[in-house]
Amino acid sequence: MSRRRQIYEGKAKILYEGPEPGTLIQYFKDDATAFNAAKKGTINGKGVINNRISEHVFTRLAHIGIPTHFIRRLNMREQLVRQVEIIPLEVVVRNVVAGSLSKRVGLPEGEMLPHTLIEYYLKSDELGDPMVAEEHIACFNWAGHDEMQDISAMAIRINDFMCGMFAAIGIRLVDFKLEFGRIWDGDYSRVILADEISPDNCRLWDMTTGEKLDKDRFRRDLGGEEEAYQEVARRLGLLQDDGSPGEVLDMSAHRTRLRNTPPKPKK
Amino acid sequence: MSRRRQIYEGKAKILYEGPEPGTLIQYFKDDATAFNAAKKGTINGKGVINNRISEHVFTRLAHIGIPTHFIRRLNMREQLVRQVEIIPLEVVVRNVVAGSLSKRVGLPEGEMLPHTLIEYYLKSDELGDPMVAEEHIACFNWAGHDEMQDISAMAIRINDFMCGMFAAIGIRLVDFKLEFGRIWDGDYSRVILADEISPDNCRLWDMTTGEKLDKDRFRRDLGGEEEAYQEVARRLGLLQDDGSPGEVLDMSAHRTRLRNTPPKPKK
Repeated sequence: MSRRRQIYEGKAKILYEGPEPGTLIQYFKDDATAFNAAKKGTINGKGVINNRISEHVFTRLAHIGIPTHFIRRLNMREQLVRQVEIIPLEVVVRNVVAGSLSKRVGLPEGEMLPHTLIEYYLKSDELGDPMVAEEHIACFNWAGHDEMQDISAMAIRINDFMCGMFAAIGIRLVDFKLEFGRIWDGDYSRVILADEISPDNCRLWDMTTGEKLDKDRFRRDLGGEEEAYQEVARRLGLLQDDGSPGEVLDMSAHRTRLRNTPPKPKK
Repeated sequence: MSRRRQIYEGKAKILYEGPEPGTLIQYFKDDATAFNAAKKGTINGKGVINNRISEHVFTRLAHIGIPTHFIRRLNMREQLVRQVEIIPLEVVVRNVVAGSLSKRVGLPEGEMLPHTLIEYYLKSDELGDPMVAEEHIACFNWAGHDEMQDISAMAIRINDFMCGMFAAIGIRLVDFKLEFGRIWDGDYSRVILADEISPDNCRLWDMTTGEKLDKDRFRRDLGGEEEAYQEVARRLGLLQDDGSPGEVLDMSAHRTRLRNTPPKPKK
């Protein structure tokens, strides 16, 4: 591939200029950071797995009508995405008390929330990604009123879909972080889902054992982060059982295979 | 006065059982604390002045139709108030960037906000009064949806009134904190303004010099806190120029006096 211009390097991804105007190439690194990059490390193979998981989730979200920046996966570590004007908010959707919410409101991790909670954090490493309220967002015009309505409506739909998707493979979706961006069409803009969805920005707990299958393994020095990320990919049908990065198991193929399985002989 | 039962002791006030059911006596101490009581001290005469200022402000707010817990001042340090079920939120209204907002969003103190900003903090010394969003308030049911509508509407009206009142005496109302409580009438409750309004929980800057006339003098070791509190009371017409706690100068008396002033002879 010819030399490309780097647009931005984040903590876990690099953005390069894309092959045509309005596109970018999103490269997934193995770098892992936590606590606003106070803790740094590497999770071997994370970039490859997150590229696949994020492709999978974004593709399925598009199927239910959520507009996203994802165009197609290019290779093991890269995907082609639409260029957006990023909205400087981290949108956190929570189903279960964990992490900073536990500290903020003094409730134990694992307590089911009475209903889904959406929180907003200002994207600012310098300020430590402080929590902000819709009042701040309106006051400083980080996003418009209509944009916030779109964002919260999409966040709820994404949560519903992902809760179902993960429940089907024995995983409890505790919370996750989304980012959104604006795309312009003349004077009009609309908001689409950007960034990634992966075990880097979701809390995923095994429904039976309660085991953490996400970046908390790294944050909290639990070990086994590689295996946890692989386990999520495997349950989503994105990895062969031998751990090789096999073909994506799409549901139609899966159904076909099931249909072609010869019935067990009755006893 | 006969011995009274103490209901609650806070950092700056004590609540005693009132003379009849549904009432409390609110006693104003000289104790001053800051940073969640990490810093402690005394501001001599503060209780007397805050009792007078809060009486003054609550009385005038009642005149514009804001329901409050204030019934009447009893003596130098005490006022009779209605007993309420306190809503566990500190409601902060901001017109100008200062204090924790400056740190949170990285804007300099003194910058005018594009428009008035209301913030909510959970009343919890243990948790350090964390900021919360309306989403948390709804999720954990600290206040109902209708209550929050009443609270934000009252907060805006109180801000408008107080901006006018302080502007008239050369003081810029930077921000202030309110607390609200529920009173019950059978199965129905309504929300009324509770607590106090004084230089303990307002940021008040002299419009000409920018000098701070509030508790930031204590928080930031600027000195002169007694004089600052007295200056606010004096400008509100609650202290004689000699500093003695004179009669409240009510506006009707003031108007009468003006009317009775003989016109200046024309030159």
